[in-house]
Amino acid sequence: MKFEINAKDPKSRARAGELNTDHGTIQTPIFMPVGTAGTVKAVHTRELKEDIKAQIILGNTYHLYLRPGLEILQQAGGLHKFNGWDKPILTDSGGYQVFSLSGTRKIKEEGVTFKSHIDGSKHLFTPENVMDTQRKIGADIIMAFDECTPYPCDFKYARESMEMTHRWLQRCIDRVDSTDPLYGYNQELFPIVQGSTYKDLRMQSAEVIASKNRAGNAIGGLSVGEPAEKMYEMTEIVTNILPEEKPRYLMGVGTPANILESIALGVDMLDCVMPTRNARNGMLFTSEGIINIKNEKWKDDFSPIDPAIGGYVSTFYSKAYLRHLVRSQEILAAQIASIHNLTFYLWLVKEAREKIISGEFASWKNIMVEKVSRRL
Amino acid sequence: MKFEINAKDPKSRARAGELNTDHGTIQTPIFMPVGTAGTVKAVHTRELKEDIKAQIILGNTYHLYLRPGLEILQQAGGLHKFNGWDKPILTDSGGYQVFSLSGTRKIKEEGVTFKSHIDGSKHLFTPENVMDTQRKIGADIIMAFDECTPYPCDFKYARESMEMTHRWLQRCIDRVDSTDPLYGYNQELFPIVQGSTYKDLRMQSAEVIASKNRAGNAIGGLSVGEPAEKMYEMTEIVTNILPEEKPRYLMGVGTPANILESIALGVDMLDCVMPTRNARNGMLFTSEGIINIKNEKWKDDFSPIDPAIGGYVSTFYSKAYLRHLVRSQEILAAQIASIHNLTFYLWLVKEAREKIISGEFASWKNIMVEKVSRRL
Ligand SMILES: [Zn+2]
Ligand SMILES: [Zn+2]
Repeated sequence: MKFEINAKDPKSRARAGELNTDHGTIQTPIFMPVGTAGTVKAVHTRELKEDIKAQIILGNTYHLYLRPGLEILQQAGGLHKFNGWDKPILTDSGGYQVFSLSGTRKIKEEGVTFKSHIDGSKHLFTPENVMDTQRKIGADIIMAFDECTPYPCDFKYARESMEMTHRWLQRCIDRVDSTDPLYGYNQELFPIVQGSTYKDLRMQSAEVIASKNRAGNAIGGLSVGEPAEKMYEMTEIVTNILPEEKPRYLMGVGTPANILESIALGVDMLDCVMPTRNARNGMLFTSEGIINIKNEKWKDDFSPIDPAIGGYVSTFYSKAYLRHLVRSQEILAAQIASIHNLTFYLWLVKEAREKIISGEFASWKNIMVEKVSRRL
Repeated sequence: MKFEINAKDPKSRARAGELNTDHGTIQTPIFMPVGTAGTVKAVHTRELKEDIKAQIILGNTYHLYLRPGLEILQQAGGLHKFNGWDKPILTDSGGYQVFSLSGTRKIKEEGVTFKSHIDGSKHLFTPENVMDTQRKIGADIIMAFDECTPYPCDFKYARESMEMTHRWLQRCIDRVDSTDPLYGYNQELFPIVQGSTYKDLRMQSAEVIASKNRAGNAIGGLSVGEPAEKMYEMTEIVTNILPEEKPRYLMGVGTPANILESIALGVDMLDCVMPTRNARNGMLFTSEGIINIKNEKWKDDFSPIDPAIGGYVSTFYSKAYLRHLVRSQEILAAQIASIHNLTFYLWLVKEAREKIISGEFASWKNIMVEKVSRRL
């Protein structure tokens, strides 16, 4: 995996780059749609590629491990073969989902025991077996097994958790470095910075993570309920320490404004369920602002959803028609809104990349943050 | 509207034709996907056109009248403009849905009063206002307001209902012939033969319907629970009487086998919710037979759903992947299965048309009925 920086914005820490994987090149900054159970909800593979123009998607280790299960995924030849997405894939470690199962999970130094949300069966995730699982899923980028602390989190818990995450990281590294990929292409491990909202913990964690010298680095434990200013503050501290020449992935972020601000702080990769989850509730992100399509005001607005961003659904379907579908609880509503929101997110990072290259990012960003945040 | 017969099968009553509408030509025999509330469930307009190769879709007057309502549809410029489908549309009269609301509806000579299933509000459908409603929706083919009798139905009820349907038909005709279309293209009224499963009533009704000399004729009140043999018997009696030179539409039919048998009896147009409704329950119709994709046996079948019929979803996605999506209750499952089933239905009628033209229909039909009916 090679990361090349094409341009740096003169007035911010934003950069435009290219990340080369065995499944093709990713132009950064990039937003990565979330494909939880091997599908980006309500979106066909062809639409992801041709309409949304996604360059890399996520898979969730926890979900894929439970269903369809590793045996089926291995028989298929990995997730790419299983779902027909032949561009890069990143898998999380399953940690985030497992830790969310509070009450049914138990954390020890060895790993985490938890009960399946599907059938209640008991399972154990360890740094080692999670690496093996991600080998079997076959993502191009695999994530270290970490504990993502909740917000708020007291200092002592945050520090001890961070220290365990660092110990787990070394076990992940040892396992990945002593095993081979299963499907003939490379898989790179990204370690994850933790430390909650504590400046000194974040600095300490970023130093540890940077010292591992992996192909890319991630920032976890943010966008979990803390104020946006706190998130930006922590991100900035960490991006100041993580190496310039490696891609930086800010996990689980966020709104269109969050994405632009994070890019300005030197983040290269982001993911979030927001564009698809909110789409299913009738919230549209557009180049003019945020729309709640259920509102009466759209009932006779026959203009396209967002012609400025191009793409099939955003230019073809009207707001009034989409509102009708949402009110009628039609599946097509989720399809249209999901594709639209993802098309918008990918349009936004593409615009950001172009502005970084042309040197206009910082001023464009300030105007856009304003625009994409307003409620229409 | 002009109907031209291109070929007749020498060994059955099947025929291949072309029905010209102001929204383009329909090649018959044709299956018409059902777009209840202005959307064929889980299918994009582009997919209907380019993947499924639908030539005409249905809209449901009852559903569209309640939501989005006639005001919005008129402001949009009709249903074609509202949902972006620029090929032919046929609307039912709403009668079937209204009569299904048993308990909450009341039939009189004037019309039917009923309560909305959405908000309980009271409405009246009459032959006249249903014609006006279909003018406002703007379908190319509009259906007479009739009573679709249930099965079984005693003779006296069936006869009296049929007689009222005939009186209502004349009121529909009077209304349509004294009003103009609203959007600059023609709308043709198809009358509907009723008479339950009584041979003499069916003959009598077919004579009345034929005598009205409209652009096309429909056969209603079948596929409502009677044995298939009864349905074919009634269809044959009616197609023997309805004029050769007009298209014949058999309403609400049916399975792939039903469709082929009906074509053999001289039917030109069919519709049914089965391909989409059953798709949402994991039932796939394929060129090799019927698949319940939830079955264990498909869990590691990585072959495409049905490569023989072509089309994106049927050749791209594997059975194992679709099974995973169905089990995971993913929206994409409904999307893939719906597009596949409709692609198959449209493939089937296209094949039938080619076989009629090449003179091989009758023998091909017997093989196909066998094939498409078996459970895999
Ligand atoms: Zn998020
Ligand atoms: Zn049906």
